[in-house]
Amino acid sequence: MKQLRVGLIGYGFMGRTHSNAFRKVNNFFDVPFQPVLQTICARNEDRAKAFAAKWGYASAETDWRKVVESPDIDLIDIASPNDTHAEIAIAAAKAGKMVMCEKPLGRNGAESEAIVDAVEKAGVANMVWYNYRRVPAVTLAKQLIDEGRLGRIFHYRAKFLQDWTISTELPQGGEGLWRLDVNVAGSGVTGDLLAHCIDTAMWLNGGIDEVSAMTETFIKERMHTLTGEVTPVGIDDASLFLARFNNGSLATFEATRYARGHKALYTLEINGENASIMWDLHDLHRLQYFDYRDEGKLRGWKSIHITDREHPYMANWWVPGLQIGYEHTFIHQVADFLTAVGGGNTPSPTFRDGLATDDVTDAVLQSAASRSWTKVKTR
Amino acid sequence: MKQLRVGLIGYGFMGRTHSNAFRKVNNFFDVPFQPVLQTICARNEDRAKAFAAKWGYASAETDWRKVVESPDIDLIDIASPNDTHAEIAIAAAKAGKMVMCEKPLGRNGAESEAIVDAVEKAGVANMVWYNYRRVPAVTLAKQLIDEGRLGRIFHYRAKFLQDWTISTELPQGGEGLWRLDVNVAGSGVTGDLLAHCIDTAMWLNGGIDEVSAMTETFIKERMHTLTGEVTPVGIDDASLFLARFNNGSLATFEATRYARGHKALYTLEINGENASIMWDLHDLHRLQYFDYRDEGKLRGWKSIHITDREHPYMANWWVPGLQIGYEHTFIHQVADFLTAVGGGNTPSPTFRDGLATDDVTDAVLQSAASRSWTKVKTR
Amino acid sequence: MKQLRVGLIGYGFMGRTHSNAFRKVNNFFDVPFQPVLQTICARNEDRAKAFAAKWGYASAETDWRKVVESPDIDLIDIASPNDTHAEIAIAAAKAGKMVMCEKPLGRNGAESEAIVDAVEKAGVANMVWYNYRRVPAVTLAKQLIDEGRLGRIFHYRAKFLQDWTISTELPQGGEGLWRLDVNVAGSGVTGDLLAHCIDTAMWLNGGIDEVSAMTETFIKERMHTLTGEVTPVGIDDASLFLARFNNGSLATFEATRYARGHKALYTLEINGENASIMWDLHDLHRLQYFDYRDEGKLRGWKSIHITDREHPYMANWWVPGLQIGYEHTFIHQVADFLTAVGGGNTPSPTFRDGLATDDVTDAVLQSAASRSWTKVKTR
Amino acid sequence: MKQLRVGLIGYGFMGRTHSNAFRKVNNFFDVPFQPVLQTICARNEDRAKAFAAKWGYASAETDWRKVVESPDIDLIDIASPNDTHAEIAIAAAKAGKMVMCEKPLGRNGAESEAIVDAVEKAGVANMVWYNYRRVPAVTLAKQLIDEGRLGRIFHYRAKFLQDWTISTELPQGGEGLWRLDVNVAGSGVTGDLLAHCIDTAMWLNGGIDEVSAMTETFIKERMHTLTGEVTPVGIDDASLFLARFNNGSLATFEATRYARGHKALYTLEINGENASIMWDLHDLHRLQYFDYRDEGKLRGWKSIHITDREHPYMANWWVPGLQIGYEHTFIHQVADFLTAVGGGNTPSPTFRDGLATDDVTDAVLQSAASRSWTKVKTR
Repeated sequence: MKQLRVGLIGYGFMGRTHSNAFRKVNNFFDVPFQPVLQTICARNEDRAKAFAAKWGYASAETDWRKVVESPDIDLIDIASPNDTHAEIAIAAAKAGKMVMCEKPLGRNGAESEAIVDAVEKAGVANMVWYNYRRVPAVTLAKQLIDEGRLGRIFHYRAKFLQDWTISTELPQGGEGLWRLDVNVAGSGVTGDLLAHCIDTAMWLNGGIDEVSAMTETFIKERMHTLTGEVTPVGIDDASLFLARFNNGSLATFEATRYARGHKALYTLEINGENASIMWDLHDLHRLQYFDYRDEGKLRGWKSIHITDREHPYMANWWVPGLQIGYEHTFIHQVADFLTAVGGGNTPSPTFRDGLATDDVTDAVLQSAASRSWTKVKTR
Repeated sequence: MKQLRVGLIGYGFMGRTHSNAFRKVNNFFDVPFQPVLQTICARNEDRAKAFAAKWGYASAETDWRKVVESPDIDLIDIASPNDTHAEIAIAAAKAGKMVMCEKPLGRNGAESEAIVDAVEKAGVANMVWYNYRRVPAVTLAKQLIDEGRLGRIFHYRAKFLQDWTISTELPQGGEGLWRLDVNVAGSGVTGDLLAHCIDTAMWLNGGIDEVSAMTETFIKERMHTLTGEVTPVGIDDASLFLARFNNGSLATFEATRYARGHKALYTLEINGENASIMWDLHDLHRLQYFDYRDEGKLRGWKSIHITDREHPYMANWWVPGLQIGYEHTFIHQVADFLTAVGGGNTPSPTFRDGLATDDVTDAVLQSAASRSWTKVKTR
Repeated sequence: MKQLRVGLIGYGFMGRTHSNAFRKVNNFFDVPFQPVLQTICARNEDRAKAFAAKWGYASAETDWRKVVESPDIDLIDIASPNDTHAEIAIAAAKAGKMVMCEKPLGRNGAESEAIVDAVEKAGVANMVWYNYRRVPAVTLAKQLIDEGRLGRIFHYRAKFLQDWTISTELPQGGEGLWRLDVNVAGSGVTGDLLAHCIDTAMWLNGGIDEVSAMTETFIKERMHTLTGEVTPVGIDDASLFLARFNNGSLATFEATRYARGHKALYTLEINGENASIMWDLHDLHRLQYFDYRDEGKLRGWKSIHITDREHPYMANWWVPGLQIGYEHTFIHQVADFLTAVGGGNTPSPTFRDGLATDDVTDAVLQSAASRSWTKVKTR
Repeated sequence: MKQLRVGLIGYGFMGRTHSNAFRKVNNFFDVPFQPVLQTICARNEDRAKAFAAKWGYASAETDWRKVVESPDIDLIDIASPNDTHAEIAIAAAKAGKMVMCEKPLGRNGAESEAIVDAVEKAGVANMVWYNYRRVPAVTLAKQLIDEGRLGRIFHYRAKFLQDWTISTELPQGGEGLWRLDVNVAGSGVTGDLLAHCIDTAMWLNGGIDEVSAMTETFIKERMHTLTGEVTPVGIDDASLFLARFNNGSLATFEATRYARGHKALYTLEINGENASIMWDLHDLHRLQYFDYRDEGKLRGWKSIHITDREHPYMANWWVPGLQIGYEHTFIHQVADFLTAVGGGNTPSPTFRDGLATDDVTDAVLQSAASRSWTKVKTR
């Protein structure tokens, strides 16, 4: 089997999920490539080496430019903080490498547009890690919608609720906390959590036409780890918006890190004329489905335990009844990427799909700032 | 409309549910009788009078024999402790009254048999208050089974879990606690809770052939309210049994008052070749249904919110989505009783049905005592 | 006990829930009045008489003015369509009667203001039937919030989802369908469903400062029953809004009759610094509670089965584990009304509370029309 | 790090779960060994080679004796059908290898006893793969019980429900179906499914004293794949039993492959004086916990989402809210095995623990055959 040598930039939470995916994919999926964990790159040499040892990377590096330019690398995988995405991705594209990038693609649409231009000009394979499309339940939802089972869509609603930043003691920035630093992250929950909701929503229900949003920063000042000083918090702690999709359906979206009791509760629901679908990340192995065409007295919400061979991706795992978890979405994404690239197809979500999501988050932030309905940029 | 004058014996928990049923039935159901709350009978005169005032009974009485013999009474409704059922019911039958009786019918099969003989000889309408048959979700389960949707039945399981007698401080006997006094109650959870499970089970799945049971009294001695002395507890605190139904299906049954966290968790499940059904009393307005004939990738347990007009009894209540509660099962039972009697039909469960359940509880207690598989008496 | 003679205007769905409440309250609650079902009033004489017979009203009437002016009536209860509320309520107040009125109080703030002026000028007891405050689980939520258990509030979200008007075949207006006729109803789901969400929200979380809303009428034309002609639909089928409460918390609200699979799914959630609460109408006998102060490894959402004696109103019903239903909220409301009036206190929600909700729904409709953030009127 | 060279016998479902565990453990856990996938052994050479390629085994072998005797192997891992366990395990012990073995250990207590004797005589590390102990929720249950939170235990109930053999078309025996062949499997659901329930139960609640059981073979004859002939089915399709634990608590156990709608629904519940616990495999990342010592009005079942750092094993995975799945239980088991062995401790469950479970399943089968209460063998 053909090898595909991976250079991973970033060793945090996402560095782990990606490494695991590259390392496991061939055990479970028949794909035309064998990913090779070639190089891990991180600014801190000790950590890079420790990570390489833990995961079996052949080498560790501290300068991402060397990785991008190395002839030993086929694919650059970007799992470093958001403020590094554009520079690395553009350089990788110019070097002719395939590029995978964590979401959000850029810190805003302008950054993302530059990235998209670079990969499209270079003609290199690219994919943004909106992994929730590959939760089998969500993929099944997509199938059901594509099969026309829902009929005309009236409503979409999504939320992503967390509660990990409620404490005023939490600093902003620094190791593991760059998501609280607006300069690094670009925004708060809008780019971190809503971006996931928006990507899935547009995949399932098409483009978004306009939004009316509000954001809030509940804790106004936090100590910044790098300076030790208490400074204003620049990110949005919560972001809510109303939207109208191009297909005429109405939507509410909400993300927050101040919803006590919810750790990573990404929920989505879509209501059609004939059927409706619900899903949530805290029980990601289930899909709720209601079909009005069922016999009257037996209508109800069905909880489908997504562990059967008929379910997307599941024939590759265990036996019916035995659930998989979060990390598997990344494995599915790698499998689909490799299959597409091997077959000469375009793996999705592409960077251009990632840009489309950034256009919506830009509109959300702009609407919140201007307190007015805002059109999503069309390209 | 024809009036039907009720003489109620007993003013406790069940006295209230019955009174409420007689008082409300005409507001919601078109039935051929108007029940009239004629006489409430209780040993304590003050309580009888207070109850009469609260519920609108025309008179209060302390001697049940007078009620039974009164020409102003058409129906004797027995809601007094178990040790009084046989004497009152037999007298009522002899007096030519219709008779309704709380469950269990007698404290054992022998008592129940005498009662059945009396009503059948007198030819009077009779009904035992196994009210859970009239939970709309349970009635729907019966319909689905009768329609043959489940196919061959393999398994039945039921349990009734409570936790209200765990404290050693609780006395046995006395006001509101006669269920702990074996002389009054006849048995513990076997007659109180398992009897419900068994009545529903035989209604849904046919007769029971044989059982293997175990019982336990966890707290061996309690103060007896009437004597003030600490004496051995005679009732069973927990009762579990395996069973084989006449149709070849296998079953587990369990009842206890020592299952911390469960207040009145009556659950039942039936597994057929093609479909399965689950229900529980803590969410009595829902029925869980699984149909294997559904499309493969969409198979799952459907939670049917039993509040639609197509659902049993529900067209008589509110609008879809709005649930009813526990007390409504008694109203349904009265409605069905009045309709049957008015139409010259036999309302069920009859006393004979109640006897059949007592035959099973007798077998359960006998099996537990003898530590052996025990055949249920066939009549 | 003192009698309180009720004159009910309207015999529809709400006429039934109110009649049931007046008829049952004394069986379960010790209150200082005995409501008497004196007169039912409806435009159609036959229906009024049939209703009187079914519920035991002493008389039936077709002219509400006669009822309002009758010396035999102490309390006018308005359960007729929204366009009749103001005229009847004002007349009743002028006649010195106590007045209860279905929600929304008026078709808009202006109508409601006139009603409020009338009752306050007359000094008569008044109450608007926002019955969901009296779901025991919701009342418990109020207690928990009042006890300060949640800490600073960050988020509130509520929705009321139905699916009964999706068919294009459904006419607007006429018997049982006046909620689809904008002239009668005043608005669509905004006044019908969102009003419930808003009343509860302000009760639990205080006043609302401003909103950004969107509404939609999915089916633009329907046959009008009264004329037989297909005419434009004037009501909103769906209404969604973002809000900021006076306490700084953020909110999403949504109501629709186009959410396939939901019959009357009113859900609410409130997230505080220390604890969060969730509730939904499809399982109204449960409250979900999360407390961050629980021991770390044992934190979780607790499903509280609201059937214990410690729970609001529940000591008056059955025994732990046995649920009540929708209709009981009206009984609780009558009980509280009678207790307050008997004790010389003001029963809530008052008409002034009802006006406050109408001010919010006015702002919602105005925001949707103007596509801009709109301040809620302060009085 | 020290290498530990694994020789795996068997390449089926369990061969995959074990290989995955050995391959991933070092990526997530700091353990004193690095497992090396040295040799896979299977009777069919092509399949052995294909499996080796898929999982990265250094070599493939068809004769397990060669693997057992190979100096390149430190640990023999037995994942082949039940009828091979004893012979391989005993040989491995004699060869001085560490031995891990799939459950049940032997086809009956006699076989298991011989295996235990062999490993104890050889003094080699040994472990039986009762993987469900390492579901983090189940491990947490064990902690809570060990901390004494439940108080005196009254009840235990467990069931393992499947529905995959209902079709009469399914053959017995052959590739992937040896679990239906009594000669290979030893028994049906008793050894396959109940064994899991029993192992967990005894771990959580101590030894079982006696049982009363019933078994059933619903489909009496099936085509045997190896002979092509229709022959009697020797396995039990369903197995139910009542039990009394040594601590006096009462139990029901049930396993079946005829419970339509359940794919692998292993559920357990334990009720103590003060607290109760529930868990099920279909939502393995949750634990239900009820504590009576909670404040009265706030008592309820808490659904704990077992994804926090405080939860067993979870600090090694992702971030709060993100669930793991079935396969992780095997990784945890390998991690614990390696840690114990590295630290000179005994990893559990040992083969002796596996024997204890086989003693119970023997008693169950004997009780079902003799239709009598049967004592579990004590050793």
